[in-house]
Amino acid sequence: MQKAGVFKSRGACNAVFALDDNSIIKGVATHSSGNHAAALSRAAKLRGTKAYIVMPNNSSKVKIAAVERYGGIITFCQPNLASRESTLASLIEDTDAVEIHPYNEPLVIEGQATATLELLEDYPDLDIILAPVGGGGLLSGTALAASYFCRKTIVIAAEPEQADDAYRSFHIKSFVPSINPDTIADGLRTSLGSITYPIILKYVNDIVTTSEDAIISAMKLVWERMKIVIEPSAAVPIAALMEDKIRCRNKRIGVILSGGNVDLSNLPWQHT
Amino acid sequence: MQKAGVFKSRGACNAVFALDDNSIIKGVATHSSGNHAAALSRAAKLRGTKAYIVMPNNSSKVKIAAVERYGGIITFCQPNLASRESTLASLIEDTDAVEIHPYNEPLVIEGQATATLELLEDYPDLDIILAPVGGGGLLSGTALAASYFCRKTIVIAAEPEQADDAYRSFHIKSFVPSINPDTIADGLRTSLGSITYPIILKYVNDIVTTSEDAIISAMKLVWERMKIVIEPSAAVPIAALMEDKIRCRNKRIGVILSGGNVDLSNLPWQHT
Repeated sequence: MQKAGVFKSRGACNAVFALDDNSIIKGVATHSSGNHAAALSRAAKLRGTKAYIVMPNNSSKVKIAAVERYGGIITFCQPNLASRESTLASLIEDTDAVEIHPYNEPLVIEGQATATLELLEDYPDLDIILAPVGGGGLLSGTALAASYFCRKTIVIAAEPEQADDAYRSFHIKSFVPSINPDTIADGLRTSLGSITYPIILKYVNDIVTTSEDAIISAMKLVWERMKIVIEPSAAVPIAALMEDKIRCRNKRIGVILSGGNVDLSNLPWQHT
Repeated sequence: MQKAGVFKSRGACNAVFALDDNSIIKGVATHSSGNHAAALSRAAKLRGTKAYIVMPNNSSKVKIAAVERYGGIITFCQPNLASRESTLASLIEDTDAVEIHPYNEPLVIEGQATATLELLEDYPDLDIILAPVGGGGLLSGTALAASYFCRKTIVIAAEPEQADDAYRSFHIKSFVPSINPDTIADGLRTSLGSITYPIILKYVNDIVTTSEDAIISAMKLVWERMKIVIEPSAAVPIAALMEDKIRCRNKRIGVILSGGNVDLSNLPWQHT
């Protein structure tokens, strides 16, 4: 329930407002197919500078419209990582904009951490905080904030079984990239970063996985009973609870509901 | 975002808890096809008594399940007012339960009024409060609370064009019943009551109407931008704002979002 419909406004705003005037004058840039692009465009607009966004040419109309609404300047690329990175590199060379990575960036991680800070202000005695994990920006911020503000609160992450690179990286203690992830939780398809992975190894207590069916059921349950529109990525921790993946008996549990951007004309339970 | 997914929990709880032990011992009873039935069942359970609910035999499975979940004892009847009333009358004769009418009941109106009380506690300087109108329980409570707690706040009601009995009753100052209303806003199909109508005539500032298309657009807008699941009936005041039916320039406006019970597998924008 925050601007751009997703936690990414926290990290994008923190990064854009932490930079000094000289650094920011030529604008900010990123490649993103989704929520970070909209959040960064909005943050740049608030700061009075430009946001250059590299988006794959198969991005959804809804996401392109969101970036445009916040004044982001879009450059389209081919829908693969190599094209995204090379297009961003030449864009930055042309514009002198500062790159703001969607998750592998301390200022962004700091911003995402504020969700947990606020949660612990409201509920200081939580035993467990649950968060989803994709690139690890939200999870790193969550784990750092919990560790810093409340020693007794542990952090557990949930990830789709069908995009379980963070789960495997965490348990074998060796980085596993995300290759062809096939999950409805579109915010959780990315690999961990060089900054987020070590933080997660050190500060996160456990990572568990959930089935696609459970993600859809959890999303529907929250819509029906809490009356809150959440996207599949946000439903993953609830799915882990529903699938009994986390020992939660007699525990006080906080869950980060990470975002609510969904295509309302294409809901997953219409296909099942 | 309250129990049973709708404001009706307020009125049902107030009525059930205001009655003394002797009055309540044989249970409470009502006829209702929807939200009041679930809310009354829950209130009775909390008070430790029984709820006898007369429901049309064509009620949706979702609504039957909600009543059963809260422990309501259902008697099915034919889907017309005569059958509902006669079935309820014989049920009350058999059980000695107390009838709690869904809206034409001062204790229920009092309970619904608490929504406006809380709204004015948070925002004491509202110029206008908007509420939908069906049977008039919520609207009567809204208007009485606004009048009592904040003299400067006026109350305007919104109603579907295709169920405009309250609109016509208000403007011609003579009661018009709701006959064959054909609106997606299923909570607003009922006629005003003998208690609610005079309150509305005296305390409500205006009633406006909205199109079905605007109701659907308003509902979708709230889902998309506020991330709150609201039902069509709750979207009607937003629809009136979107259709410019209310002079709102430079005004501070509060809107009562009345409920969020929708069938998620059958959303109206899938058909348009």
